[in-house]
Amino acid sequence: MAKAKTQVALVMGSDSDFPKLEGVVATFKEFGVGCEVRVMSAHRSPDAVAKFASGAEKRGLSVILAAAGGAAHLAGVIAGHTILPVIGIPIGGTALSGLDSLLSTVQMPAGIPVATVAVGSSGGTNAALLAVQILARSDAALAAKLRTYKKTMARKVAEKDRALQKKLN
Amino acid sequence: MAKAKTQVALVMGSDSDFPKLEGVVATFKEFGVGCEVRVMSAHRSPDAVAKFASGAEKRGLSVILAAAGGAAHLAGVIAGHTILPVIGIPIGGTALSGLDSLLSTVQMPAGIPVATVAVGSSGGTNAALLAVQILARSDAALAAKLRTYKKTMARKVAEKDRALQKKLN
Amino acid sequence: MAKAKTQVALVMGSDSDFPKLEGVVATFKEFGVGCEVRVMSAHRSPDAVAKFASGAEKRGLSVILAAAGGAAHLAGVIAGHTILPVIGIPIGGTALSGLDSLLSTVQMPAGIPVATVAVGSSGGTNAALLAVQILARSDAALAAKLRTYKKTMARKVAEKDRALQKKLN
Amino acid sequence: MAKAKTQVALVMGSDSDFPKLEGVVATFKEFGVGCEVRVMSAHRSPDAVAKFASGAEKRGLSVILAAAGGAAHLAGVIAGHTILPVIGIPIGGTALSGLDSLLSTVQMPAGIPVATVAVGSSGGTNAALLAVQILARSDAALAAKLRTYKKTMARKVAEKDRALQKKLN
Amino acid sequence: MAKAKTQVALVMGSDSDFPKLEGVVATFKEFGVGCEVRVMSAHRSPDAVAKFASGAEKRGLSVILAAAGGAAHLAGVIAGHTILPVIGIPIGGTALSGLDSLLSTVQMPAGIPVATVAVGSSGGTNAALLAVQILARSDAALAAKLRTYKKTMARKVAEKDRALQKKLN
Amino acid sequence: MAKAKTQVALVMGSDSDFPKLEGVVATFKEFGVGCEVRVMSAHRSPDAVAKFASGAEKRGLSVILAAAGGAAHLAGVIAGHTILPVIGIPIGGTALSGLDSLLSTVQMPAGIPVATVAVGSSGGTNAALLAVQILARSDAALAAKLRTYKKTMARKVAEKDRALQKKLN
Amino acid sequence: MAKAKTQVALVMGSDSDFPKLEGVVATFKEFGVGCEVRVMSAHRSPDAVAKFASGAEKRGLSVILAAAGGAAHLAGVIAGHTILPVIGIPIGGTALSGLDSLLSTVQMPAGIPVATVAVGSSGGTNAALLAVQILARSDAALAAKLRTYKKTMARKVAEKDRALQKKLN
Amino acid sequence: MAKAKTQVALVMGSDSDFPKLEGVVATFKEFGVGCEVRVMSAHRSPDAVAKFASGAEKRGLSVILAAAGGAAHLAGVIAGHTILPVIGIPIGGTALSGLDSLLSTVQMPAGIPVATVAVGSSGGTNAALLAVQILARSDAALAAKLRTYKKTMARKVAEKDRALQKKLN
Repeated sequence: MAKAKTQVALVMGSDSDFPKLEGVVATFKEFGVGCEVRVMSAHRSPDAVAKFASGAEKRGLSVILAAAGGAAHLAGVIAGHTILPVIGIPIGGTALSGLDSLLSTVQMPAGIPVATVAVGSSGGTNAALLAVQILARSDAALAAKLRTYKKTMARKVAEKDRALQKKLN
Repeated sequence: MAKAKTQVALVMGSDSDFPKLEGVVATFKEFGVGCEVRVMSAHRSPDAVAKFASGAEKRGLSVILAAAGGAAHLAGVIAGHTILPVIGIPIGGTALSGLDSLLSTVQMPAGIPVATVAVGSSGGTNAALLAVQILARSDAALAAKLRTYKKTMARKVAEKDRALQKKLN
Repeated sequence: MAKAKTQVALVMGSDSDFPKLEGVVATFKEFGVGCEVRVMSAHRSPDAVAKFASGAEKRGLSVILAAAGGAAHLAGVIAGHTILPVIGIPIGGTALSGLDSLLSTVQMPAGIPVATVAVGSSGGTNAALLAVQILARSDAALAAKLRTYKKTMARKVAEKDRALQKKLN
Repeated sequence: MAKAKTQVALVMGSDSDFPKLEGVVATFKEFGVGCEVRVMSAHRSPDAVAKFASGAEKRGLSVILAAAGGAAHLAGVIAGHTILPVIGIPIGGTALSGLDSLLSTVQMPAGIPVATVAVGSSGGTNAALLAVQILARSDAALAAKLRTYKKTMARKVAEKDRALQKKLN
Repeated sequence: MAKAKTQVALVMGSDSDFPKLEGVVATFKEFGVGCEVRVMSAHRSPDAVAKFASGAEKRGLSVILAAAGGAAHLAGVIAGHTILPVIGIPIGGTALSGLDSLLSTVQMPAGIPVATVAVGSSGGTNAALLAVQILARSDAALAAKLRTYKKTMARKVAEKDRALQKKLN
Repeated sequence: MAKAKTQVALVMGSDSDFPKLEGVVATFKEFGVGCEVRVMSAHRSPDAVAKFASGAEKRGLSVILAAAGGAAHLAGVIAGHTILPVIGIPIGGTALSGLDSLLSTVQMPAGIPVATVAVGSSGGTNAALLAVQILARSDAALAAKLRTYKKTMARKVAEKDRALQKKLN
Repeated sequence: MAKAKTQVALVMGSDSDFPKLEGVVATFKEFGVGCEVRVMSAHRSPDAVAKFASGAEKRGLSVILAAAGGAAHLAGVIAGHTILPVIGIPIGGTALSGLDSLLSTVQMPAGIPVATVAVGSSGGTNAALLAVQILARSDAALAAKLRTYKKTMARKVAEKDRALQKKLN
Repeated sequence: MAKAKTQVALVMGSDSDFPKLEGVVATFKEFGVGCEVRVMSAHRSPDAVAKFASGAEKRGLSVILAAAGGAAHLAGVIAGHTILPVIGIPIGGTALSGLDSLLSTVQMPAGIPVATVAVGSSGGTNAALLAVQILARSDAALAAKLRTYKKTMARKVAEKDRALQKKLN
């Protein structure tokens, strides 16, 4: 990932969430999108977050992914400081099974959107894909990769379909 | 809105949802973004949806907004047919208060993201703003408008703050 | 199951759900109902789903069972393409414990019913039984088997009742 | 509805639910399916329910629809007494917004399926449509009507789409 | 438990729930209340349930405890057939964590009460205690035992309080 | 209600809940059971509650009904002070629709049962009926009235059944 | 409220929430506690919030109350910038009935507490009372007022108790 | 902890909750705040609770922390007996995942606030920190420690940020 221009950032509230976010890093690697990964907390290091978010556009970032659990304010707070699209990844596995993370991330007031993805294992991967879709609006090569990715997905499902048929007959 | 190039589409599952989506249209008008508004149902007119979504990129659309309630499949189904970013607007006011709409929209499987916004009155406005943020990644004039919009919001809050202080003293 | 005429299909969004659907296959075997098992995704392979569902009636299928988790659109999307009865099996064990799967499956808009069964271990078996009940409307032999099945169930409960009494006394 | 052979029954736990079930009666009328409408309570008149359900098949019924709210046991209790397909309509508007009705109806144990439709305004109509779909398995005329109904739905959505376009331009 | 007059019955929908109901049996033993334990299903053996519940008062039972999970209809169905107090024990650990069991048990319509206790480990013990409290209304010896039980509970808490203090100092 | 011996008490946390509890008073009147109605708060007048509950048995009460909303502690607190059966009535219509009232009332720890009835309009009536069922264990006249009440209910449902049939034909 | 020293601040995310917060202002007035009322948004005016919260202690404030709805980040964000106790008031009446507001306010990560009060009409009053309780730790006059307040509450409940008794006899 | 003046008390409903409350004890130790730890039950030993809470202020306590699960009445009951700030810690891991504990603790009626913290692992630590924040209002040394604590938190997050960056490059 070293050489690709850093276009996106993944910010997480706690480094203990990193194992749940492998899909993000893997997906950006797959698409050749440069991603910086940061640990910052809306509550424990708010000034760092404000500084990061306010300067993100100037530093050349195009999309910010923010992952947090519980009273998950990180994505919303970042969105308050930037006009970049902010993608919120609600972290599950909390005492309330991530319902708290989901609602805290998605129910933003008018004026400050957070593009929220699923709580659960698909969230990270989909957040990265959404970022790639956004970048692809002005990057034809990425758009082509997305089309290939989509076709590959359909093909893999078809293969699994055939494999299961074979197994059952 | 007639003259602006149509860059985004708002698709709703039922025209009865249109009154809840005024924020979408008003916001695109405010930013001068051309938006086509469509009624299509993932269940009642699935072929129309598939055709629309599959052809959206070629027709020059950049972002698709999809609004639906209950078992809200529209955004997810559209996302299955396109590599454009799809923004899901869960419509509230269902028997289960929109919790069904929210979960049906946001909990997408890996591979097919839907950028979900809030269920409730802010959802439409934020969906449109998110689309503008995405478009602004390759449109400096839109980015400037977003910066102004953000400053205006902060100023308006400050004005309301002063007004309330005055009223209470 | 090879020789029985294929009257029903079980479609699942991901082959990883198959272990949770053993009750379906076992039940159809028990009743001698031919069942094809398919892997297709409403989002990853939407064209395959549309083709399958649109052609299902002509191919001689009478009932379709669709199992999916999270934003479980599969049953609804299939129902949009066919006049066959579609039975939705919400897959549990998601980050939100299958509440997302249940609501995404059952809360269908007017015009496109999905016959939804329980999220949890009983769902698969009951989906298959429901299909048998439907087939039995025009198959007296199946109806007879269902009557026997029902009596056997009652008898087994009575046996467990006696066994527990014996154990406790 | 007088002359059509009575093939289905709609049973409700309380006659106060009847206004929420107009979609059932209207839909059966539209398809020319004879429907008897009954008031019976799983708790207040359990013997009447048992007698009705046990004898339903012999009396020539093919499908039973059962509507109840709160601890909605009616559909499940009926299903315990018959091998006919039973469709459960959870009545909303309870203190807990129908979540109680939905879970009480759908979460049936293995062996006794209830085909559950949505809580909310679409539930009644979809329950009736599901019954028609079941009857249509052995009634080609009904199947033809269902195909027409489906096409009409798609056409109506397209008309609303055009109407909204016209209104907005 | 053999010699004590059988005054109460514990009915469960499935013998697999028995391990979760040990608190019931242990508590009745502790209070010397004769309890019969039965396996009967509101759905799989409805006639057995109706017969049991209708005859319970005549057979000398005073209180019935009914335990079930999921669409937990057992307590409600029994209550429909008897004027004895019926105590509902919602069994937890379902796909929806027992919320389905709780709502299906407690949300009974007017006319047919079910005295519902907690979903979770305390439910069984409390159901038995509630039965003892009811029996104690006409059994002074039982009332005395309840008073002792209550004092013992308070004393045990005080002992644990002292033990913890000691451990921490 | 003046002359009947006071056997039960209805305690409510706030007199504003009284209109929701009419079913209690009406039901006791119907059965000729003397009921005292009290306003006491587990939080605002805890000493009054403790005094009332501790002395209830000696004053000749047999059952206590406690109604409260939100963090509904009243029934549980009363149960902590008495060996009488305590029936909890969760008051609905709170910001969280009575889910808070229900869970606060029913989820009692082992040792202190609260017999909980439905949140919603049936709760009050059923709480009173449950109390009558308890009293009827040692009052044959009440038991007879309950049997009549049960038969009347069944008859009324049958009448409504006939009335609806007539109306529809 | 002009003359009392300003010890507390009530911050709300939107002035449209002010009518729901009358209990705050009335309670502080009753206790003679000086309160400034501010409109600031964690998302729309984040810099104003950061500046306010960071400087609150120096400006002589002792407790901060923060009220917000939906993805209610205000209290948490303020708490990130100050060592003063922060009381969170979740505003209800959202599309999801304030469950979103409650979870977003209360589920804070370790290190940054928010003292959360009820969603619903009691929240504002209780937030103010909690602030008074905190101030009373170093203000004997306030402590005395709280004791009087508590006694008055108990007396009022007793009066309502007597009034209801009188009305019913 | 022996020598520090006892300013706060941690009361838990059951000593089995103690392992979940280690954060409380550790945090008070870290800040040098003397804390007594007690086991008392609102339901099993209500008189002990009433006596403890009524006398807490006179015994020199300044803040009370109360931890309980399920129908968690402990904090509310204590708050009914004292004018001290009461902090409620909802214990998770119940059958209903602590949603019952949270709602029972936070949804207090007007007049009796409970300062509620998160259900889940952060709850205990945050309850202690909130108590320290309250004590710090009249203890400059504690306030200084809180400022240091806050800076240390921010620094630790920054260190983790750097560590992750290093690991990924």
